[in-house]
Amino acid sequence: MRAAYVRWVGPDSVIEIGDLPVPTPGASEVLVKVTAVAINPVDNYIRTGRFQTPVPLPFVVGRDLVGTVVESGSPALGFAPGERVWCNSMGHDGRPGAISEYVVVPVDRLYRLPDGADPEQGVALAQPAATAYLGCFVHGNVRAGETVFVGGGGGNIGLAAIRMARMAGARVLATARPDDHQRCRDAGAEVVVDYHAAPMVDRMLDAAGGVDVYWETSGRHDFDRVERVAAPGCRVLVTAAAEQRPTVPLPQLYMRDVSLIGFVISRATVDQLRAAADLINPELAAGTLTARIADRLPLGRTAEAYRRLAEGRVRGRLLVDLAGRTATR
Amino acid sequence: MRAAYVRWVGPDSVIEIGDLPVPTPGASEVLVKVTAVAINPVDNYIRTGRFQTPVPLPFVVGRDLVGTVVESGSPALGFAPGERVWCNSMGHDGRPGAISEYVVVPVDRLYRLPDGADPEQGVALAQPAATAYLGCFVHGNVRAGETVFVGGGGGNIGLAAIRMARMAGARVLATARPDDHQRCRDAGAEVVVDYHAAPMVDRMLDAAGGVDVYWETSGRHDFDRVERVAAPGCRVLVTAAAEQRPTVPLPQLYMRDVSLIGFVISRATVDQLRAAADLINPELAAGTLTARIADRLPLGRTAEAYRRLAEGRVRGRLLVDLAGRTATR
Repeated sequence: MRAAYVRWVGPDSVIEIGDLPVPTPGASEVLVKVTAVAINPVDNYIRTGRFQTPVPLPFVVGRDLVGTVVESGSPALGFAPGERVWCNSMGHDGRPGAISEYVVVPVDRLYRLPDGADPEQGVALAQPAATAYLGCFVHGNVRAGETVFVGGGGGNIGLAAIRMARMAGARVLATARPDDHQRCRDAGAEVVVDYHAAPMVDRMLDAAGGVDVYWETSGRHDFDRVERVAAPGCRVLVTAAAEQRPTVPLPQLYMRDVSLIGFVISRATVDQLRAAADLINPELAAGTLTARIADRLPLGRTAEAYRRLAEGRVRGRLLVDLAGRTATR
Repeated sequence: MRAAYVRWVGPDSVIEIGDLPVPTPGASEVLVKVTAVAINPVDNYIRTGRFQTPVPLPFVVGRDLVGTVVESGSPALGFAPGERVWCNSMGHDGRPGAISEYVVVPVDRLYRLPDGADPEQGVALAQPAATAYLGCFVHGNVRAGETVFVGGGGGNIGLAAIRMARMAGARVLATARPDDHQRCRDAGAEVVVDYHAAPMVDRMLDAAGGVDVYWETSGRHDFDRVERVAAPGCRVLVTAAAEQRPTVPLPQLYMRDVSLIGFVISRATVDQLRAAADLINPELAAGTLTARIADRLPLGRTAEAYRRLAEGRVRGRLLVDLAGRTATR
């Protein structure tokens, strides 16, 4: 089978395209024919060794996939050939990655794509929507009636965070580029302002009367703003960081019971990922949550996709298309 | 009755000693004759307005008290005259403070001092042991088998934190001055090293194979050390801060699911404080947890006690003694 893999850790230039043997599913695994993979920022960290996790070589790259079941390691697993499925936790902790024609997925990491769902949305939302779930329900513990701030609400994580915080019954305030304001409102934001307009952001937050969950998804943290607007007990979610060593006004934060809660989806348990999928699947079926897809590239252009992501000019998800219209290019 | 109070917010020099009317307990309150009050660092923040909370003037200062019941607002409250009691949440959120001959305490904030307990230990431990409870069981969620680091283990909060982390089934590593090492070991620390000897601290922590809960009770945070020794999912408790704006290596922390969890006892709920008291009382009865008491002063020297605390040269708890051997001075 064709696959995108590396024989040693390194930059995107070490990614090779070649043939690897089709894997055989074990008793608790399912063989999936991959139709698309979403290029995930964490893949760059894992391939370069920055995020430490076992990387068995040759290492197929990629994490998030959508595809169809070929065969189950055991009939008891409950997956039938031809069923559409998705996964957002390959390529980590010793598991091979997703960018190959066939992938063996542990059954506890495999979710059915619901009828009527767009497979591209399934793979594009796999990581951002699950991250939003973890932020809102696992780490941030958003409760009904609370006020949640989502910075970068027009991004795929931000938009999903707005939607999930609203599902939790919170009032959501967001920042986004003006051309994303309507999407943010549609997802459930009560107020959206341009993130470039700092005085307007300040006014929105000052008027909120205390923010209970503060999530700057862009990683451009302003802890002086956090200090000013955090309600007692505020949870500040940290899932990205533009600065390596920001200064933090620690006395002002601890005296208000404010926590900075860092997390990455890579450390989520299978139960947490499953719970996320249970919440995401109805959204996929109904089309009520969507991700922005920036572009689709064939398997042969995998390295280019990672390079474009690393260069930071991509707005939305890049997909590697293994079955669709670009797959034969 | 004699009381130590302020007529406006300000430094310790605004504390006056004078007569105020004896308060009358409401239906859910208990009138207590105070025998001793522990001077609490947070009192300085509240009296100066740095910690924002309603301060009805004239405002009796002090938070933590031990005393005897005089009368209940209602017999149904279950407190009989003469019973020894303690409280660690007066002088906050509109409630008058503790340094007066009589105090009315809401019944849900009043705890019996168990038979055989030393009243001075009861009041001296009231805040540090409850803070340790909140850190270990509410905010830090210490679990059996985890590794907990307690910096400043010889302090009253630190020693109580060692004891409670051990009660939770954790392995405890601590730093302390050499003359406090035996106390730390007696409280349950497996390894104790001199906090001045940075290489030894590093060796102890590096050998631990990952710290799950990291609590530098002194507030002298070293986030580079945290970054190096934190296990994935580590909770870093922040209850003091020597620096106003430390730099924090945020990317390294969030990628390991590390949280900085700030808290103060002032924001604990009555249920949390009650749960703390339920754990502290058996320790008081058995004498298995003790606080260091630095000195005892009479009511008339309250301002001096706060000044000494603010000057930072006090090792242990200062008590204002309203009934004992210094009370008539």
